[in-house]
Amino acid sequence: MSVLIVGSTALDSIKTPRAENPRLLGGSASHAAVAASFFSPVNLVGVVGDDFPKKYLQLYRRHGIDLAGLQIKPGKTFHWSGEYEVNLNHRRTLLTELGVFETFSPELPEAYRSSPYVLLANIAPALQHHVLNQMRRPKFVVADTMDLWLNIALDDLVKLLKRVDGFVLNDSEAQQLTQQENVFVALKQIHKMGPKYVIIKLGSHGSILSGPKGYFLCPAYPLSKVVDPTGAGDSFVGGLMGYLATARGSIENNLRRAMIHGSVVASFCCEGFGLNRTTKVTRAGIAQRVKDLEQQTRF
Amino acid sequence: MSVLIVGSTALDSIKTPRAENPRLLGGSASHAAVAASFFSPVNLVGVVGDDFPKKYLQLYRRHGIDLAGLQIKPGKTFHWSGEYEVNLNHRRTLLTELGVFETFSPELPEAYRSSPYVLLANIAPALQHHVLNQMRRPKFVVADTMDLWLNIALDDLVKLLKRVDGFVLNDSEAQQLTQQENVFVALKQIHKMGPKYVIIKLGSHGSILSGPKGYFLCPAYPLSKVVDPTGAGDSFVGGLMGYLATARGSIENNLRRAMIHGSVVASFCCEGFGLNRTTKVTRAGIAQRVKDLEQQTRF
Repeated sequence: MSVLIVGSTALDSIKTPRAENPRLLGGSASHAAVAASFFSPVNLVGVVGDDFPKKYLQLYRRHGIDLAGLQIKPGKTFHWSGEYEVNLNHRRTLLTELGVFETFSPELPEAYRSSPYVLLANIAPALQHHVLNQMRRPKFVVADTMDLWLNIALDDLVKLLKRVDGFVLNDSEAQQLTQQENVFVALKQIHKMGPKYVIIKLGSHGSILSGPKGYFLCPAYPLSKVVDPTGAGDSFVGGLMGYLATARGSIENNLRRAMIHGSVVASFCCEGFGLNRTTKVTRAGIAQRVKDLEQQTRF
Repeated sequence: MSVLIVGSTALDSIKTPRAENPRLLGGSASHAAVAASFFSPVNLVGVVGDDFPKKYLQLYRRHGIDLAGLQIKPGKTFHWSGEYEVNLNHRRTLLTELGVFETFSPELPEAYRSSPYVLLANIAPALQHHVLNQMRRPKFVVADTMDLWLNIALDDLVKLLKRVDGFVLNDSEAQQLTQQENVFVALKQIHKMGPKYVIIKLGSHGSILSGPKGYFLCPAYPLSKVVDPTGAGDSFVGGLMGYLATARGSIENNLRRAMIHGSVVASFCCEGFGLNRTTKVTRAGIAQRVKDLEQQTRF
């Protein structure tokens, strides 16, 4: 089955202590869509300007990503520019030019409205609501978010939590949302806000799933070299949803392996700037890292 | 088989934002010995002053810890006092009174010199050397350390690394020792310094083993409440060595489960001040948490 992915489609200019890369393909939906595409067909909903490079449309298409929901509007594509510190754990935003993204309203082509799997990648919660308002009884809806929405759209986000099956956020966002330092206490509180499944991302320390079957402690793939972590979280949740959409059996039973596959795609994402490394990944390459993780966690 | 454990035996006065606990039983060897005692007989080598409370000697004995190597000297027991910040991730030392520990020289009773399993818990590397000089061909030697020795006794520590089978340190110490930010690059460099097995501790994020069979990503047990993390690292390596000493089969094959058992004992340690919680643990309680971790990591 296919996955519907709605989020930002952007151009990212990324500085690290070692290199500078202007106008890479970026945005939460781009990373998530490419990650999901290794496992299932993807329907992408987003917006770009008329300056959006043709090569990036071709890149989406090469990954079998359906673009019927990608709006191309007169104006500039959302452009984000950021700089990472030496250890790549902290980044600061240098520039945010919203362009056509400022007035983005995700409109779903008729065929997308009955998608069973929906990933509301990181965009404003109001837009995430707008997507759900157009859907017909999806089977499994997961929402991602970021600290910005906790700061400026908390009410919308809290309402959204009652409408999703799964919610993904990182540890500092979980602390901010619940005012709880302890990640396991935070998980309990977030469940009370709605979602059956809550996943807290811990960066290079992996992620934690909390659901009806208890916790799953999902490892990050060991990397000796991290080039650019931008989009790793989006790749993780994209890979997860792509895997879920084609796996046989119940979501409950598949979610752990889905997270492992998401974690592996995220590891590739970190090994290159933007989507440079992710787009070169093969199913065999993913399978090998999943096997490695099985070996590295067995006891 | 028994484990020889050499390290500090101290009185810890620990402040957290919620409570203050004076003169608890502490020190690297105390935590490690109690942790190991759940799995194997322990021979303890350390020093205390004549002010050392009798109840703590009884505590050791209750755990079957042999005290033939515990020196009782005229003077004061090593007293450490520290304060934790709200999130318990950072602590600062308020006071260090070395007392009889200042002139401590670990002398091994004859019967201890042929111990197969030796844990050089955190003390000065020169003293760790002095212990090894008294040993007859131990089967498996593991050393722990702390940032202080990297700062003031680096040469001794580097020489020690050529004499041990396993070396345990935390991530910031590994960075300091190797000047490498990346933990997997640091692991490779530490192997080159001598040890066949290197374990990097990541606090609440677990630990990583690197050895001939590759990596093992060892989880920390999920805790909703951390009362006092003092001694968790010592409990981890103590539990690990105690488990190894009685497990059948090769060290290589047992090391992963040994780490899991150490991780579980460390989780109990964090749930009370000093050794308050650890000393109440049962084998059944440990077995249950090991089972939980199996369930929480399977995919």
